[in-house]
Amino acid sequence: MSEHPTASLDDVVHQKHRLGILTVAAEAKRVEFGYLRSTLELTAGNLSRHITVLEQAGLIAVEKGYDGKRPRTWVSVTSVGRTALAAEMSALRALVERHVASGS
Amino acid sequence: MSEHPTASLDDVVHQKHRLGILTVAAEAKRVEFGYLRSTLELTAGNLSRHITVLEQAGLIAVEKGYDGKRPRTWVSVTSVGRTALAAEMSALRALVERHVASGS
Repeated sequence: MSEHPTASLDDVVHQKHRLGILTVAAEAKRVEFGYLRSTLELTAGNLSRHITVLEQAGLIAVEKGYDGKRPRTWVSVTSVGRTALAAEMSALRALVERHVASGS
Repeated sequence: MSEHPTASLDDVVHQKHRLGILTVAAEAKRVEFGYLRSTLELTAGNLSRHITVLEQAGLIAVEKGYDGKRPRTWVSVTSVGRTALAAEMSALRALVERHVASGS
């Protein structure tokens, strides 16, 4: 029997808010903190916490700077992060296909 | 802007081992504990813990009995659980499709 698709899910990537951050950030070269917050409907504290987890795992890079006088934080997915996200998406696709095939 | 697909993910269902339990159990009328354990490659303690969470949320029903003299535990997905799993699968499908569409 081949491995069940959930066996290859990584909790760091799979957690729903982190999955949201990675997928939204992967859609552009980099995304701004406020954009992530409104797109994912997260509080600043919650978003910060998950960004830290992803950054510590090497999946995203965080850049701090200014937009005029306003401090801004940008997030980009690292190449390690893109690989991890691709693996998650591949497992999710296999899971959905298996579910459909089982007719359940 | 429509809601991001991750916003509709429910942590009770989305956690990777619980997602595994629900998808495997949904493939049959009921599944035996040992079958879940080997299919999902979980320890008995870990599987028990997640089964309890799912049972307390009303997503699965647990039945204890005997196979000959051997005690057995069977798990089945409730109708509430099937609805929750269908919602998860629908959100995962939307997430994968969005990811593919973004070309990232």
